Amino acid sequence: MANAHEYAKANGSQFEKQLDDLLRIKSISTLPECKPDVQQAAEWVAADMKRIGLTTVEILPTGGHPVVYGEWLGAGSSAPTVLVYGHYDVQPAVKSDGWDNEPFDPVIHDGRIWARGSSDDKGQMLAQLKAAESLLANGSKPTVNMKFLIEGEEEIGSTNLGKFVAENKAKLKADVCVISDSGMKTIDQPVIDYSTRGLMYLDFEVFGPKQDLHSGGYGGVVHNPAQAMAEIIAQLHNADGSVNVPGFYDDVLKMSDEERAELRNHAATEADWKAATGVPQLWGEAGYEPHERIGGRPTLEINGFVSGFYGAGSKTVLPAKALAKISCRLVPNQDPNKVYELVKAQLLALTPPTVRSEVRLQASAYPAVMDIHSSAMTAALNAFEKGWGKRPIFERGGGTLPIIADFQRQLDNLPVILMGLGLSGDGAHGPNESFTLEMFHKGIDTAIYFYEELGK
Amino acid sequence: MANAHEYAKANGSQFEKQLDDLLRIKSISTLPECKPDVQQAAEWVAADMKRIGLTTVEILPTGGHPVVYGEWLGAGSSAPTVLVYGHYDVQPAVKSDGWDNEPFDPVIHDGRIWARGSSDDKGQMLAQLKAAESLLANGSKPTVNMKFLIEGEEEIGSTNLGKFVAENKAKLKADVCVISDSGMKTIDQPVIDYSTRGLMYLDFEVFGPKQDLHSGGYGGVVHNPAQAMAEIIAQLHNADGSVNVPGFYDDVLKMSDEERAELRNHAATEADWKAATGVPQLWGEAGYEPHERIGGRPTLEINGFVSGFYGAGSKTVLPAKALAKISCRLVPNQDPNKVYELVKAQLLALTPPTVRSEVRLQASAYPAVMDIHSSAMTAALNAFEKGWGKRPIFERGGGTLPIIADFQRQLDNLPVILMGLGLSGDGAHGPNESFTLEMFHKGIDTAIYFYEELGK
Repeated sequence: MANAHEYAKANGSQFEKQLDDLLRIKSISTLPECKPDVQQAAEWVAADMKRIGLTTVEILPTGGHPVVYGEWLGAGSSAPTVLVYGHYDVQPAVKSDGWDNEPFDPVIHDGRIWARGSSDDKGQMLAQLKAAESLLANGSKPTVNMKFLIEGEEEIGSTNLGKFVAENKAKLKADVCVISDSGMKTIDQPVIDYSTRGLMYLDFEVFGPKQDLHSGGYGGVVHNPAQAMAEIIAQLHNADGSVNVPGFYDDVLKMSDEERAELRNHAATEADWKAATGVPQLWGEAGYEPHERIGGRPTLEINGFVSGFYGAGSKTVLPAKALAKISCRLVPNQDPNKVYELVKAQLLALTPPTVRSEVRLQASAYPAVMDIHSSAMTAALNAFEKGWGKRPIFERGGGTLPIIADFQRQLDNLPVILMGLGLSGDGAHGPNESFTLEMFHKGIDTAIYFYEELGK
Repeated sequence: MANAHEYAKANGSQFEKQLDDLLRIKSISTLPECKPDVQQAAEWVAADMKRIGLTTVEILPTGGHPVVYGEWLGAGSSAPTVLVYGHYDVQPAVKSDGWDNEPFDPVIHDGRIWARGSSDDKGQMLAQLKAAESLLANGSKPTVNMKFLIEGEEEIGSTNLGKFVAENKAKLKADVCVISDSGMKTIDQPVIDYSTRGLMYLDFEVFGPKQDLHSGGYGGVVHNPAQAMAEIIAQLHNADGSVNVPGFYDDVLKMSDEERAELRNHAATEADWKAATGVPQLWGEAGYEPHERIGGRPTLEINGFVSGFYGAGSKTVLPAKALAKISCRLVPNQDPNKVYELVKAQLLALTPPTVRSEVRLQASAYPAVMDIHSSAMTAALNAFEKGWGKRPIFERGGGTLPIIADFQRQLDNLPVILMGLGLSGDGAHGPNESFTLEMFHKGIDTAIYFYEELGK
């Protein structure tokens, strides 16, 4: 009987084929018209769970998109239990955003599979499922119990998952949670993120005249809402790059000098950041290095805006309104609901009496920080060392995994391990998202080692 | 034989039916896909000119959309010749902009005909043509020669008309030009605009990272282009509402104290402006009253902008670029090309080194001012007094009629009379554009009086 690592190696191309299948499902959670696709992705995941031998597989409804749950508890009640979290939903994508291929028609070249969700998170989530498959294959008996919680609303702030976790504490009880939904800079140096940022996302709308006006007949007499919005947005950052929202930094847990020194050891250089993004010069909060601004500091971002006429040619309209999508990434101990109230108050305070504005909360998630000294973390370090041949370094992550804070708060401070398998250049959330096949296979191997380490 | 005024009255409903026909043609000059519709509108106008008895009717090609020309020179070489200018093209419009009806499916209610172009300029232009029809009807012989120049590119800055006029000086030779393409505040008080503003329209694009990025992975390290654009736009006006472009006001011809006092006599109140626009408070350049800011001062307007994600829900993208459409209304003696260079230089100067930007000229037109003491102007005043029962007041117009400066410069300083038949509330360039049928019929009657006055 082949061991789990040999099974994974022998079935590598089959695993890639399965990833290709899943990537073809347009499971964009934020678009109402994709609801059937999201459901289809849930069913695909459930079917795969059943096929690989999980003993209880359910598609569980929530207030939004369903959760897929599967478990294998054959290691017995004295063995440790690992809870695997991942998500099958993806960000929006259309080819015209700048993709070289159709985002839901995956192609493989340059050692990568190119499709929306390949890295975030279908590829990474599937690596965990394929590790479980390898452990369960050939009738072998893993030494760890496994529970899989794969949700469909991560990209829209996991709106309904907190409630689901609170209502299913017994079902989700575990000794450690592992999540593959983050990344490292290069394939040579594995990384474990030990913090994630929270999120607060809002719509900000400015209203001027009751309808679009002729710019010649009214320009100079009414305050143009696009101009007013620009004037408000321009005041949301100070000249030093800090966020100009009273109280915004009040609850920020400062990084210690030791932590900053440790993080600096492995930090990307300014040249690395410029090469990765193509910008002529970096930007950000003064007093913090780029990796600190991503991992340890909160930010405020304009995710998009629209007003008036923006087509080809010239339309001399004075628009009636302008809309901006604004979000903040938060760090411990910021509370997204409190930050929403602060940003909302500032947006309304910055709105001049010449226009009217509205603020509407769209999504929110708590930040989280994880214990790097837990026994589960030691198991993860050992697993990476075996899977990669190199001990991982610790970093602070810039992204948001709403579920971590929920797990910590609802499930007795459950230790969470971020086994990120993405790479910085994967293009998550942007066009031409891709996932390195070598990371996929190394990730499966490392996850197997992790389960083995936990069950020792 | 009925006189021209009786003919116009008897044929009023027929004239409305013809206007309805013309409004159904989607002659949006800025949209390439509407080119056949623009051509169709030109053919409609030419056919009507032939039907009413103009003796030379031509659809003349330009570098863009064609010019429709028609003339009747039966009054003889000793009689004065009037050149009528108008345009058959319209601004873009789709119902989703906020229209209550399909913008190219006219409806009549509340004494108005509702459709794109009803006021600007198909309705006003047709009033002139129907005046000519009335004068020529029943075999009567007008005492004035008439030339009609109806173009198809007014809404895109009359790009090719200047060249057309320069190349057709003899054909267009006239003693006075009349244009119905402006308006008055109320139907009770006729107005003659004696100045129009020029226009400079540009695209401004800001480029940041080479592609859209994950806001969690890069927010706080690169300068968000939407934010950078907002920060640049916010600097284009000073706190006092003046335009912050070095040199912008250098060539502005100041209004005299006498002129300002005269204009103040009939000026709309702040309450009028607020009622017309629905804004909570007016805005604009300090030191000038609202009507002065519209008629006598240059402005800079954001006609629209777009960046990143602006749909429903939340997409945590850091956009790669942002686009704004920016235009200036200009007054004598500003030169649109010089102003373009000034604004471009300021936009580039305000672009921080963290992003890259591009500026592209889209359209330009010269401002114009007209002699209020010419004999043609006296004829216009008399005509309005007969048609309206009230002497017109003089105002400065805020809109742009690129052709006026071209006529003045190419055709021996040809006197131009603006016989505006629109009303401020017509909604030109915005949704629910409409044209008052009473203005249509009064306009036809007044235009007949004008031709009669000129031919005395």
